[in-house]
Amino acid sequence: MSEQGRLSIVGLGPGDEQWLTAQAREALRDAQDIIGYGPYVARVPEAPGQVRHASDNRVELERAREALERAAAGRKVAVVSGGDPGIFAMAAAVFEALEFGDPAWRALDIEVLPGISAMQAAAARLGAPLGHDFCAISLSDNLKPWDLIEKRLEYAARADFVMALYNPASLARPHRIHDAFAVLRRHLRPQTPVAFAKSVGRAEEDIVISRLDAADLSIVDMSTLAIIGSSGTRLVNRDNDRPWLYASRRAK
Amino acid sequence: MSEQGRLSIVGLGPGDEQWLTAQAREALRDAQDIIGYGPYVARVPEAPGQVRHASDNRVELERAREALERAAAGRKVAVVSGGDPGIFAMAAAVFEALEFGDPAWRALDIEVLPGISAMQAAAARLGAPLGHDFCAISLSDNLKPWDLIEKRLEYAARADFVMALYNPASLARPHRIHDAFAVLRRHLRPQTPVAFAKSVGRAEEDIVISRLDAADLSIVDMSTLAIIGSSGTRLVNRDNDRPWLYASRRAK
Repeated sequence: MSEQGRLSIVGLGPGDEQWLTAQAREALRDAQDIIGYGPYVARVPEAPGQVRHASDNRVELERAREALERAAAGRKVAVVSGGDPGIFAMAAAVFEALEFGDPAWRALDIEVLPGISAMQAAAARLGAPLGHDFCAISLSDNLKPWDLIEKRLEYAARADFVMALYNPASLARPHRIHDAFAVLRRHLRPQTPVAFAKSVGRAEEDIVISRLDAADLSIVDMSTLAIIGSSGTRLVNRDNDRPWLYASRRAK
Repeated sequence: MSEQGRLSIVGLGPGDEQWLTAQAREALRDAQDIIGYGPYVARVPEAPGQVRHASDNRVELERAREALERAAAGRKVAVVSGGDPGIFAMAAAVFEALEFGDPAWRALDIEVLPGISAMQAAAARLGAPLGHDFCAISLSDNLKPWDLIEKRLEYAARADFVMALYNPASLARPHRIHDAFAVLRRHLRPQTPVAFAKSVGRAEEDIVISRLDAADLSIVDMSTLAIIGSSGTRLVNRDNDRPWLYASRRAK
């Protein structure tokens, strides 16, 4: 194994380049191989001599192994994720591949470069809904049973956490958000503020604020991040725009 | 009120400039007034003609009102926070000041610029401990009762969330993390992995991995972020460095 190899797991942030960190920009410029889900690879600025390996959404582990193999062969590799690779993205898959892969990979130079996650971009547009205690739950039941997701939603409601819900719908399972709201409606006040942030930072960005009992869930798709308020979530009305949403610092 | 005024609530990320986003860098360069807690203001690169207003740690609301007043007077104002202003930082204070302040402020041009939060930088150093469902809890009981914090820790343990604990100690209350661990030890397995990340991104950075039953809490101070693993947290040992820590994507 060459000592020159390096694996950088890089967060692109959501949407356009405005949320890219200086550290991520530099790692992308220096990488010889860019590996990731096609739409994320397409967002990386072109650099001379760089090879791009775009793959499908569902092959995280294969992609992780490919990245480790290339780094072990002496390449400077960047695995790219939208958002933060450490939050519902590629970093966990890389470390899983590392744990169960070639023991020699453990000597590799690996670094994780954090990025702005979808919940942070959504929160920034809305005001400060994640300003106090909150949780982040993926509604994807590809790798965990749905009853565990229901249990987490219930405990999160009882803990009075604000919730950021990732993967609220997929093409295969568009109904997840409906099932999640059915749980939440049993535990939270009907007037609990909720928000849906779609494609934040992209041209098709759309933000909707509603209430738990009145939310139109038909707008929720794969590109949506849902935020569920707590008892401390407050709305600040404005004349010519949607209200600001924020988490009161003063809990009851 | 001048139409030229603007209030940007800007996240600097933790530690040095590597984690600053392009958006934040631009807003800092364009601001006429920089407002914030002294050590954060000191981290903003100098720009000609810019006025700096450094204040003490405990005066978030006064600082927020000052920022709104200056923006209302037509100034381009940046309120700066370490990390992400939307996560246990200045953004919630600004919207609280907005809600209870001069109604004319609601017409102001306000934007929140997210940043890398301490838990993301800590997670990046450790591997991918926040790779799946997690919660973020501030242990500060300045504005919420300690029994609410205990309740949230208990529900978070029962939900099997990974936890990121902010403000685990302060000069006035160094014992918070001990009280929190007493709660967690009643609900989680003794061998649950825990990690303490101190001053990530700064010269004095220090990362320690331990277990719930064996952790030395005397190292925890104001600059520490604590991460508590879940049943899915895994360690990947290395010969010449501390283990990687990651959240398994496969829940039990």
